[in-house]
Amino acid sequence: MLSATRRSLRFPARDLQRAARSFATEHNPPTRFESSSVFPDEPTHPTLKADSVPGPKSRQHSASIAEFQDPRAHVLVGDYVKSKGNYLVDVDGNEMLDVFAQIASIGIGYNNPELLALAKTDEFATAAMNRPALGSFPSEQWAETVHKGLLSVAPKGTPHLFTQMCGSCANEGALKAAFMAYRARERGQENQPQKFSEEELSSCMKNATPGTPDLVAMSFKSGFHGRLFGSLSLTRSKAIHKVDIPAFDWPAVPWPAIQYPLEEFAAENAEAESRAIAHVEETIKAQAKKGKKVAALIVEPVQSEGGDNHASPSFFKALRTLTKTGVGATGSFWAHEKWNLDSPPDFVTFSKKMQAAGFYHAADTRATDAYRGYNTWMGDPIRALQAREMISFIKAHGLVQHTAAIGDELYSALQGLGKKYSGQINRLRGKDCGTFIAWDAGSAEARDRFVAAMRQQGVVMGGCGEKAVRLRPMLVFGDKQLAIFLDKMETVLKQESGR
Amino acid sequence: MLSATRRSLRFPARDLQRAARSFATEHNPPTRFESSSVFPDEPTHPTLKADSVPGPKSRQHSASIAEFQDPRAHVLVGDYVKSKGNYLVDVDGNEMLDVFAQIASIGIGYNNPELLALAKTDEFATAAMNRPALGSFPSEQWAETVHKGLLSVAPKGTPHLFTQMCGSCANEGALKAAFMAYRARERGQENQPQKFSEEELSSCMKNATPGTPDLVAMSFKSGFHGRLFGSLSLTRSKAIHKVDIPAFDWPAVPWPAIQYPLEEFAAENAEAESRAIAHVEETIKAQAKKGKKVAALIVEPVQSEGGDNHASPSFFKALRTLTKTGVGATGSFWAHEKWNLDSPPDFVTFSKKMQAAGFYHAADTRATDAYRGYNTWMGDPIRALQAREMISFIKAHGLVQHTAAIGDELYSALQGLGKKYSGQINRLRGKDCGTFIAWDAGSAEARDRFVAAMRQQGVVMGGCGEKAVRLRPMLVFGDKQLAIFLDKMETVLKQESGR
Repeated sequence: MLSATRRSLRFPARDLQRAARSFATEHNPPTRFESSSVFPDEPTHPTLKADSVPGPKSRQHSASIAEFQDPRAHVLVGDYVKSKGNYLVDVDGNEMLDVFAQIASIGIGYNNPELLALAKTDEFATAAMNRPALGSFPSEQWAETVHKGLLSVAPKGTPHLFTQMCGSCANEGALKAAFMAYRARERGQENQPQKFSEEELSSCMKNATPGTPDLVAMSFKSGFHGRLFGSLSLTRSKAIHKVDIPAFDWPAVPWPAIQYPLEEFAAENAEAESRAIAHVEETIKAQAKKGKKVAALIVEPVQSEGGDNHASPSFFKALRTLTKTGVGATGSFWAHEKWNLDSPPDFVTFSKKMQAAGFYHAADTRATDAYRGYNTWMGDPIRALQAREMISFIKAHGLVQHTAAIGDELYSALQGLGKKYSGQINRLRGKDCGTFIAWDAGSAEARDRFVAAMRQQGVVMGGCGEKAVRLRPMLVFGDKQLAIFLDKMETVLKQESGR
Repeated sequence: MLSATRRSLRFPARDLQRAARSFATEHNPPTRFESSSVFPDEPTHPTLKADSVPGPKSRQHSASIAEFQDPRAHVLVGDYVKSKGNYLVDVDGNEMLDVFAQIASIGIGYNNPELLALAKTDEFATAAMNRPALGSFPSEQWAETVHKGLLSVAPKGTPHLFTQMCGSCANEGALKAAFMAYRARERGQENQPQKFSEEELSSCMKNATPGTPDLVAMSFKSGFHGRLFGSLSLTRSKAIHKVDIPAFDWPAVPWPAIQYPLEEFAAENAEAESRAIAHVEETIKAQAKKGKKVAALIVEPVQSEGGDNHASPSFFKALRTLTKTGVGATGSFWAHEKWNLDSPPDFVTFSKKMQAAGFYHAADTRATDAYRGYNTWMGDPIRALQAREMISFIKAHGLVQHTAAIGDELYSALQGLGKKYSGQINRLRGKDCGTFIAWDAGSAEARDRFVAAMRQQGVVMGGCGEKAVRLRPMLVFGDKQLAIFLDKMETVLKQESGR
């Protein structure tokens, strides 16, 4: 059965900050970054002008937006002219340290001067206002933009790139490519134009077998993979995202029940991961008994929306073995690179902080025929330009190495706070993962209280899962911001202890 | 049974050019537009520098792109600095009259000076480089940008707006909203936060009923609605888009078999449309017998990818009656407005030429709870700015009225050519639809030959369906371009007659 999933492991790398270490050794940039060097007018500390966040002007703007869009998930209304570096300024003039970065979707600081300079170039204006259908009428600059940007950080073993518009689309595009490659292999027509049967061509127009295959994709429970119909079928983080929406009958298996701190529970965690691997294998067999073939497995390196759930490199290596192709080599920059996989993943999807979205893949998952992996826009050239500029900034300032170092300090400091304020910082996780750090509050209510109290201290942060607090600062988060953050955290932890 | 589809009719308005007439009467702008007034350096006629299109430089660029992306759908590689107005210039220096506008996705001309001016503003740079999560941290400018742009052309009866990234996402977002509204009504909890049962909340996490409902969406055969898993399940235009991809078991009904010219086949067409309406009704009943409820019907006002298939206002009125809600009023600007519906559609989706994407809807299909109609980016602020500027340009230059007039001339001229070159222009369609005009060639091969020959004459155009030629010029297509187009067309029609 395992051969049935040969081409199926996917690692959506959701955050540039993950896997911070190995990249730096290649590029040897400066070790630490001081954000005032790039953002001279970045605030030095949070300042609240309004009595509360959101303040009266935010609430007024939200009421105006409510006339045409749902405002119930609004946190505040931003002033993106005044926001600088790590500081999000809102319309009430509140200057807030932002360690959530929208939804982990801002990379190198608000109003980064190098990005603003790009925005004022003719190159950017031309790309923005003459939006091509990139699959049919690409621009003269397309290959160069992609080579200097997104391809310059392509994970090893996946040198091909399908550009899309957002993370959900990227995941669904990769999923389609996996299904098509799976069927090509079943047909014995791998990596070549397909000779479809008449029956396949006519039945697919009725959404019926054999042309519309009954293949399934597998995901992990508590994972989040998007909100469109295919990606939402894989998402298992929260019922509110899924209820009332038709979904594919696809299986999900439990994520390993890791305990923290890792060093205290090494044996238990190894056991939990073995059980999870066994569960994947059993599920593939159980599907087979029902006549269903598992053609793809989607994996979040860190389950974020579902609670910042981690697993060990050996877990991912075992998963890759279970689903392997056999292309070769290892690399840097992406979450999966530190797992030292024996063969690269088949698809690496990205979006959010990268601004551009899409997936990297190997040659053997290219579409076999024209117009099968295709859509009108095929991504967005201006977002590809922006990614190019961001990647260049990250390399020039050594931000991957910097973030690894800052993450270590942050993690240690949080360990200390956890000991001092017992019961408030539990299951701390994200050691050696840059600033991709999270912990569990004592309860869902305590978590919500903590995030709200931090906001009233001028720190924007977020939760995930049932009761987790997650940090997603930008790559320009440095020592000064770290000190402020810890100071505000201690203030709030003290308040909470005194409750 | 019909009440089961009450909130289900959707009219994705795929092109600003449709429904040209009524808009103009409201705004009383100048009648005709001369593109040289805005594009002084627009070429006056096509000029081919290379021996063929694509030329050697295009082919070289395509080979370079092929290293990382599929180039098999490339037509040419564009020089978007030199392209102007109606003329697409490629890297070989070919200056081509573009009546396809990428894939009907450029609205008001290449390098429109007003859009380029927007691109150089601080407003645009700020929006581009500080991309917010619009559902949680919207900008100070968001409400105003949307009010001045997308909301200023909101179809009557659908004043709410959900912004997305592309047409497929827009359709899937609207579909999710339809399913959620349907279930809320079934629960007797319309337009209010839902009280989900424990069973609903737990079962949806397993993609199982009752939380994951077995509701279905219906579409028309030969329609195209996108390429993601939900939208592709609705798409029925071509097998190559669908084969090998799992899909929902949703029904499709035949589009009315309209014959052209309309005036010669009035009785037959009315009969064909009645049969199609009956078919919709029968399909809903047949689904019900299988225990399946049809919660949504998606409609392309003109089936484009599937062959530029039209239908009459009375057909759409009958569909709306079959699926009606009962909100009220009529309007202008959008395809469905000329049908004089008794009640507005529930959702009007848009993308492509609008650059921004999303859907308009009525208050009764707003999400009942926070985070149910939500995603990280919720569209793109810079594309909303671009839409604002385009809409302003369209109004200022009276381009809707202009395009209606140009379309009438074009249609008449094509009628004349059809009589002169017998068998080459069949089933001409798109009368009174601006420049949204198409016809059938004698065969698929003749169509491909015609499109290729026109390209060698310096005219970029496209096909659709089995053997249709479709025109999608921009809104800045005027008398001069029309004369050139007809001249080149006659050259190619003559060649073909002599074969």
